[in-house]
Amino acid sequence: MMSTHNTVKQEDEGTKHKLEDSPNGSVEKKPHFMAENNGKQKRQIIVPACAPKIHYTPLKTGLCYDVRMRYHAKIFTSYFEYIDPHPEDPRRIYRIYKILAENGLINDPTLSGEDDIGELMLKIPVREATVEELLQVHTKEHLDFIEMTSKMNREELLKETETGDSVYFNNDSYSAAKLPCGGAIEACKAVVEGRVKNALAVIRPPGHHAEPEMAGGFCLFSNVAVAAQNILKNYPESVRRIFILDWDIHHGNGTQKAFYNDDRVLYTSLHRFELGKYYPGTIHGQYDQTGEGKGEGFNCNITWPVGGVGDAEYMLAFEQIVMPMAREYRPDLVIISSGFDAADGDTIGQCHVSPSCYSHMTHMLKSLARGNLCVALEGGYNLDAIATSALSVAKVLIGEPPEELPDPSQNPKLEAIEMIDKVIHVQSKYWKCFRRLGNSGCNFKEPVTESLITKNFPLQKAIRQEQFHQLEKEYGFVTLPIPKLELPEDTVLCSPDVFQESTIIIIVHDTPEIWAKRDVITGMVDPSTSITVDSTLDFIKWSLARKYGVLDVNIPQSLFEQDNYSAMITSQEVLLYLWDNFVKYFPSLSKVAFVGVGDSYSGIVHLLGHRDTRSAVKAIINFVGRKQLKPLVPLVDESLGDWYFKNSLVFSDRNNPCWVDNENKKPRRKFGRVLRCDSDGINNNMEERFDEATDFILDSFEEWSDSE
Amino acid sequence: MMSTHNTVKQEDEGTKHKLEDSPNGSVEKKPHFMAENNGKQKRQIIVPACAPKIHYTPLKTGLCYDVRMRYHAKIFTSYFEYIDPHPEDPRRIYRIYKILAENGLINDPTLSGEDDIGELMLKIPVREATVEELLQVHTKEHLDFIEMTSKMNREELLKETETGDSVYFNNDSYSAAKLPCGGAIEACKAVVEGRVKNALAVIRPPGHHAEPEMAGGFCLFSNVAVAAQNILKNYPESVRRIFILDWDIHHGNGTQKAFYNDDRVLYTSLHRFELGKYYPGTIHGQYDQTGEGKGEGFNCNITWPVGGVGDAEYMLAFEQIVMPMAREYRPDLVIISSGFDAADGDTIGQCHVSPSCYSHMTHMLKSLARGNLCVALEGGYNLDAIATSALSVAKVLIGEPPEELPDPSQNPKLEAIEMIDKVIHVQSKYWKCFRRLGNSGCNFKEPVTESLITKNFPLQKAIRQEQFHQLEKEYGFVTLPIPKLELPEDTVLCSPDVFQESTIIIIVHDTPEIWAKRDVITGMVDPSTSITVDSTLDFIKWSLARKYGVLDVNIPQSLFEQDNYSAMITSQEVLLYLWDNFVKYFPSLSKVAFVGVGDSYSGIVHLLGHRDTRSAVKAIINFVGRKQLKPLVPLVDESLGDWYFKNSLVFSDRNNPCWVDNENKKPRRKFGRVLRCDSDGINNNMEERFDEATDFILDSFEEWSDSE
Repeated sequence: MMSTHNTVKQEDEGTKHKLEDSPNGSVEKKPHFMAENNGKQKRQIIVPACAPKIHYTPLKTGLCYDVRMRYHAKIFTSYFEYIDPHPEDPRRIYRIYKILAENGLINDPTLSGEDDIGELMLKIPVREATVEELLQVHTKEHLDFIEMTSKMNREELLKETETGDSVYFNNDSYSAAKLPCGGAIEACKAVVEGRVKNALAVIRPPGHHAEPEMAGGFCLFSNVAVAAQNILKNYPESVRRIFILDWDIHHGNGTQKAFYNDDRVLYTSLHRFELGKYYPGTIHGQYDQTGEGKGEGFNCNITWPVGGVGDAEYMLAFEQIVMPMAREYRPDLVIISSGFDAADGDTIGQCHVSPSCYSHMTHMLKSLARGNLCVALEGGYNLDAIATSALSVAKVLIGEPPEELPDPSQNPKLEAIEMIDKVIHVQSKYWKCFRRLGNSGCNFKEPVTESLITKNFPLQKAIRQEQFHQLEKEYGFVTLPIPKLELPEDTVLCSPDVFQESTIIIIVHDTPEIWAKRDVITGMVDPSTSITVDSTLDFIKWSLARKYGVLDVNIPQSLFEQDNYSAMITSQEVLLYLWDNFVKYFPSLSKVAFVGVGDSYSGIVHLLGHRDTRSAVKAIINFVGRKQLKPLVPLVDESLGDWYFKNSLVFSDRNNPCWVDNENKKPRRKFGRVLRCDSDGINNNMEERFDEATDFILDSFEEWSDSE
Repeated sequence: MMSTHNTVKQEDEGTKHKLEDSPNGSVEKKPHFMAENNGKQKRQIIVPACAPKIHYTPLKTGLCYDVRMRYHAKIFTSYFEYIDPHPEDPRRIYRIYKILAENGLINDPTLSGEDDIGELMLKIPVREATVEELLQVHTKEHLDFIEMTSKMNREELLKETETGDSVYFNNDSYSAAKLPCGGAIEACKAVVEGRVKNALAVIRPPGHHAEPEMAGGFCLFSNVAVAAQNILKNYPESVRRIFILDWDIHHGNGTQKAFYNDDRVLYTSLHRFELGKYYPGTIHGQYDQTGEGKGEGFNCNITWPVGGVGDAEYMLAFEQIVMPMAREYRPDLVIISSGFDAADGDTIGQCHVSPSCYSHMTHMLKSLARGNLCVALEGGYNLDAIATSALSVAKVLIGEPPEELPDPSQNPKLEAIEMIDKVIHVQSKYWKCFRRLGNSGCNFKEPVTESLITKNFPLQKAIRQEQFHQLEKEYGFVTLPIPKLELPEDTVLCSPDVFQESTIIIIVHDTPEIWAKRDVITGMVDPSTSITVDSTLDFIKWSLARKYGVLDVNIPQSLFEQDNYSAMITSQEVLLYLWDNFVKYFPSLSKVAFVGVGDSYSGIVHLLGHRDTRSAVKAIINFVGRKQLKPLVPLVDESLGDWYFKNSLVFSDRNNPCWVDNENKKPRRKFGRVLRCDSDGINNNMEERFDEATDFILDSFEEWSDSE
């Protein structure tokens, strides 16, 4: 029976004129495989119909674990160190091993580190890295120093512990620190040689802070870097490129340094940075550090500007940056420097990555390098969190699907979105996948220089002129010269005969924003399909309708300043000048209201603290958007702060940082009466709160009539 | 031995004060599990140390296949149908089954559809869907009609085949078409009930074009829709939401219709659309069709505006749209409507998705719904391509990592990038993951209306005014009135006494573009950090330096027109008016060169075809960017076309569509002498070719001096 069915393979199989396999199975109503013998049998080669070309022998996932790695430990100098142990605690690897056993991934009921651990995982023996292997990354001096610690007495060890950069030593440190290095090498080897499908190296002490010539940050030798260097050396044909993804919450300065000039390793780290204040706290962790020499473009730092990031930020960074870049790099091996200190519950990391997010990230990385993936433990100090996180990673390694994210509709923090955009902008120089300028929030081809502005022109100038033309044409506004300050002549505009008014509204604003259509390829904004959205116009019209005088002040901002510091200063100067030289001399003036919009609002707050304006100023409305709140500094009189709080409404964007970190706490009174808008963006805020703002002004002017 | 090591589980495990597990393993130098017995043993519960909580029994991947599905076939009416069979060919499923066997995924050497197919896959028996099941989606009338075909004679069958919408019938069609439906149900059931880890349903005839009341597009019953409805009905607790991802190159109008008002199914399709010209060719496949009623926001069409898309476009769409949206939806089951007609080699689809791209997409979808994934065959007509594609999908289903993409650094087609941006913009109404306006190229909060423009103002107006001020201030330019056309007064500017010049340069341009920094959250462009990049200024300065007269024409574009049709008409009117009323009367004029930029250039081409300008016009330079080329229509004289070709340089963007589809073919002579720039974007093109353009003008003016 079998032999009659082991039929034919025709050489022209797949071409249109193939006749062996009648398209009309229906006519004959025979099982298909019989039809195969019916056609013309020219050029037949008798082979078994379906001799498999490939046999799938499902491989296990490799596992490195060795109790000897626990011998490196901090020497107790007090009882308190015993009850509150050092975070890089020898139990870390044990707890991970234990949870794997508890969940049936390995079979080792005694947790003794057995060799045969069942059907799913394969034990990879851990050995000490050799001196030759270590020297691939580290200097002889560094090696000699660590070796010396094995012969030091207690006092010497304590002294080195004290003087080092967050490291401790005992007499076992040297041999115990060579184990994770050797383990990482062996784990990578097993993957590269195809003995396991992927591998998890449960190792300590961690490695990624150890620089070639120096220990640091709980790390003695740079485990992953040593493994990568030795794999590149020993498998020059099969491993030409290694992608190291470091999701430890700290920057892996050691790994970065080892390959900073090397294009054979793409090092990518996601870590807290916070202007370099977060450990290791050097500029090397900044997002603009992209490698040097041959390594230029092969280093990528994704730097969280704030703590508290979690699944949303990591998933976004992976899909927007890590995966497209890594695919383009085409690595032959992927190593995860897998610290679990970004995990929810880690008091050092103070972030919120869930175990299932770790499983999703692992799943994504499995799609690279034909699945050649080695996960090596780095930091992570909450014993429960590292265990559950490592379990999630291990499950994906053995082939389970990732768990569902606890809250997949969570929005990433805005600071993280902005940072991801910056990283894409920086890396777009090196990676085709980012090369569309439309990818990024900034499409500047070159840095802004004086000559660039001379040749072209800043947009705000054109927009202010257009504002002036409109106000001039429709309402007879004129410029009010402020000769001492070197500013455009259209900086201050005023309604006709403003100096004779008894009631005036002073509107102080940044240049209005633009609704734009932009080319998603080049990032260019097409002005013909863009409009300027100027919500201050509503306030001007409202004021003029009530026969109030209007001063409209546009504070030009600097193209060069990142922090808008100069615009704030300008605003302060302009407002003081206006008050001292004009407004306070208006003969019939009795009521003034201020409306501040954007950065420029700081000029109002500054003026109110520096002059006693209370006899005339009745109301202050500020729209601050996402900008930092400005406190009133009461230089004239202590009671000014209280007066400001009572007479002001400070509308902030719903995403203003003052709310985000502190959902339930009101900003202090010196910032005025701060209210949170429901909307995003300063123009939307103004639209949302226009009625409330104008009612407030009317109330303070006591001008309610029955008709309203 | 074992029993002494099966030690204790402490209840306060994981707290800081836990003492059973000394942090200083080094001191005792005992294997860890022994240390566990040494601490204080209060509140001990004796349990095995590591009784696994979960046992992993790796599940197989389900496989549906049944030779009976081949009985539905086209009745031959000629020999040609025999040698060139209908694309929806019964061999399709056989070829997939065969390649699975050849590659060792299933063990069925005779390809007879055996029940026991080995260690990796589990055979799921195929049965006919019941009438009750079919009625969950289809109308009784439709069912009755298909049933009738089983009793029709040959003539009746051929008549129905002829009048139907791309379907054929034979007497087996009814029963054969109930099989894929039943197969899809059984495959989904096996996944949902946890009998298999996921499933591949190798089924035909396909289903996704079959609407509830009508067959179409080779489809009789809507297999996937019937399966989804019945799963939702029968597993109301465990399956509340199903995500159907349809990567068949055609829009799944039937599936979409079945769930258009239903939020329990998120239907997402990637397909060729091409303004509705591609099958099924209805507006229902457009990207703005997002569902109705309860189903609003639960339908997503990603519509390729061109053929020839491939891995780069699908990977981008998956990472930018499909995955974030599907994660946010939190499906309990994922069904892939898996047509393989987007595969490279499919002559109907004419696209280039590689087998490994299918494996990557499958891998990504596996990360949803805890891996509950069912793949159901739809279209795909190249027998080799569907086999290799299905093999790649199946390998990932059984747990292999995805293959490497053949060219991961390939750039997506620009049209696809633009479409993905549009889809994100449309879907941002419904999905939080897209809600940042900075995500998309357009941040308009509302449609552009007259009242919107009245309240705010178009940016191009401000920019043109600024241009005028600069040219007026620096070079004494004045406006040249064109009273009959209702255009802004600064539309045409000219250098002083231009009418007396013998040589003039006429520059006709769109409003210049903007280099902008925009808020990646709100998408707002901040004018204070943006500059207008006006490369026409270089041509003006160059002309004035050579004492040429200059006419600078800015063609305002309409905010309302999508296609810039009105700007082209305006440009044509302005140029004719200028020529007929001014330029041709300039008394000493002997030499004219045109410089056209952007859409506005069509006015130049129009003029040259409608008037004989050859006595004066010596050179025409056009920068067309990515805009469509405009042919010269020689109304005056046949030889004008040749003259235009000889005297023009038409610089196109490197991404202009005229090159992209036709790498080696030059555009025809009526378009002028078209050259391809190396750069992106019209300003970069102008910078790149400025010297070449001005040299060309000088050559044609015969004004080379020795100094150059």
